[in-house]
Amino acid sequence: MTAAAFPYPFAAKPGKACAPGEFPFAVIGMDHGHIFSQAAGLIEAGGDLVAAWDPDPTKLADFCTRFPQARAARSEAEVLEDPRVRAVTAAAIPDERCALGIRVMEHGKDYLTDKAPMVSLEQVAQARAAVARTRRMYQVIYGERLQNEASIFAEQIIAQGAIGRVLHVVGLGPHRLSAAMRPLWFFDRRRSGGIICDLGSHQVDQFLAYAGAKTATVVASRIANYHHPEHPGLEDFGDAMLTADNGATDYFRVDWFTPDGLGTWGDTRTTILGTDGYIEMRKSIDIARDPRGDQVYLVDRRGEHHVQVGDRVGAPFFGRFIRDCIDRTETAMTQEHALTVAEVCIRTQMQAVRVA
Amino acid sequence: MTAAAFPYPFAAKPGKACAPGEFPFAVIGMDHGHIFSQAAGLIEAGGDLVAAWDPDPTKLADFCTRFPQARAARSEAEVLEDPRVRAVTAAAIPDERCALGIRVMEHGKDYLTDKAPMVSLEQVAQARAAVARTRRMYQVIYGERLQNEASIFAEQIIAQGAIGRVLHVVGLGPHRLSAAMRPLWFFDRRRSGGIICDLGSHQVDQFLAYAGAKTATVVASRIANYHHPEHPGLEDFGDAMLTADNGATDYFRVDWFTPDGLGTWGDTRTTILGTDGYIEMRKSIDIARDPRGDQVYLVDRRGEHHVQVGDRVGAPFFGRFIRDCIDRTETAMTQEHALTVAEVCIRTQMQAVRVA
Repeated sequence: MTAAAFPYPFAAKPGKACAPGEFPFAVIGMDHGHIFSQAAGLIEAGGDLVAAWDPDPTKLADFCTRFPQARAARSEAEVLEDPRVRAVTAAAIPDERCALGIRVMEHGKDYLTDKAPMVSLEQVAQARAAVARTRRMYQVIYGERLQNEASIFAEQIIAQGAIGRVLHVVGLGPHRLSAAMRPLWFFDRRRSGGIICDLGSHQVDQFLAYAGAKTATVVASRIANYHHPEHPGLEDFGDAMLTADNGATDYFRVDWFTPDGLGTWGDTRTTILGTDGYIEMRKSIDIARDPRGDQVYLVDRRGEHHVQVGDRVGAPFFGRFIRDCIDRTETAMTQEHALTVAEVCIRTQMQAVRVA
Repeated sequence: MTAAAFPYPFAAKPGKACAPGEFPFAVIGMDHGHIFSQAAGLIEAGGDLVAAWDPDPTKLADFCTRFPQARAARSEAEVLEDPRVRAVTAAAIPDERCALGIRVMEHGKDYLTDKAPMVSLEQVAQARAAVARTRRMYQVIYGERLQNEASIFAEQIIAQGAIGRVLHVVGLGPHRLSAAMRPLWFFDRRRSGGIICDLGSHQVDQFLAYAGAKTATVVASRIANYHHPEHPGLEDFGDAMLTADNGATDYFRVDWFTPDGLGTWGDTRTTILGTDGYIEMRKSIDIARDPRGDQVYLVDRRGEHHVQVGDRVGAPFFGRFIRDCIDRTETAMTQEHALTVAEVCIRTQMQAVRVA
């Protein structure tokens, strides 16, 4: 089916959200490669990347080569104390993300972190208190929804009633392990937060967003290290059932078992069941069919529909985040959603039964 | 990918399992349309359909028109007391399946019922006792595995090590409600057994079979009537997490929300994750791609593979069942598997939390 034949039109791709010079931002913390797309997303939406810092000089130099507009700072304090900088985006080690965020906010700047934004309920409480105290934002780039065009388009057509009331979401989030490429902290559950806190954060974010729910309770969850005894701190499998405050139900599975033969890092899928139809997203690949992701399948009363939406939808999150920083609004994502997702993830992780 | 390029060959389709006249069988109970494929499967495998009975004369006449080799009996007793009949296949109302099966077995005949084979733990105990007492078989045609060629082929390639050790199975079993076509008992939970007992029985069967497990415990399960207040006895949604005795994990969702635009009765999917790859079955349709079911997708260390296996694999269950009846073996399915699936289903149904 061509895009023209798909029963829902595309919204215009987002343009610049602000004038040049209106939104200077900085980067602190490059422990996960997600930082590159975070910086690129803000730049594309109109932000000016003015400074960057990481204690690892190799990472910092590499980053400034890829983003030559960023000046390499000499310390974290130099960035935090730079009065031009309105916001900091970061991909620190997960257990350090909260403390960094609070330092950023206490310097009067908004914070946009890679997921998972925190790894313990204590950190959730600290972040909530810092938000209240500083009146700055602690925002999170849940990339599998906010940076995937299939996910963004799905959210748009659900809002137009494409599948009626959302009843159930099932998310499969397999990822390739590539153990040799991972830093040591990746294999330390206290630092990574565990597989549900890490990979599951995308899933909880999507569930609450698609279902239009405020929060969810954990019905059951499991973790396992099925096949990696050489990494005892790794959980290579996790799953959970959640029930939202509005009655919608969810299941997700996350794992590190993507086989080498897959053409990308993981075959992430989301299927959303509504009263009047369902949507399946093949977000990163359409196996044995199309190496491109961003595939949206919709089955409704009228028929079966398919469209590949790559480069048609954009990522409105970044421009909205910039406007929220400037206008003190909550259009990109509410502060409460960002923190509730973290809290639900951590509870799901904590309640998980270990499978042998 | 053509079948020739798929990395696993097809086994020969099964031929006749017995000589003409060696396996006379009968039909009793035509409350579900599955009875037609049950009779056809046994005939194709070499059985001789000699008699049929249902208390509804319209159903009985219709059946005998479609299967003219079957003589319409004048009573159930006439069939049960017919010394030629070796086995009875049946699709009675679910809550009557167990009592019928016991009558069949007490007349020295083996029993092959539509799923779900029973609706209460008392019936499971009665069936177990009848098996021990009569030494006859109480077997069950879990059709979404045993009559779907994608499922059969998947089982064959898993046995050849295609994905390593099976870790997790996720099954989605949506079905079209077609409420106007359903008999009254369908909307009475005591008679149908509930959605998990009914549609979920396929899912439990598949999980135990693919995982090579003997039994499973219920981690959590849910039921709902989300959208059919006019049928208060209907559960239109059910799901569950199970953990098998060998550590494999499972999730399934079943529902009655198939939209009218789908080209078939339901988009049933099964995804089996192993240590070395995964299999996705698009069992009844490949939405917006191919109206045929029986689609097997395999991703392993070597690549992404796809094959449509319709009419290439056959349904070995029926011939094996016939041999088991004649030879007193358990090659089609162990007696314990058939009854354990029922028991796990009923426990899953009983433990289900109702979602508003």
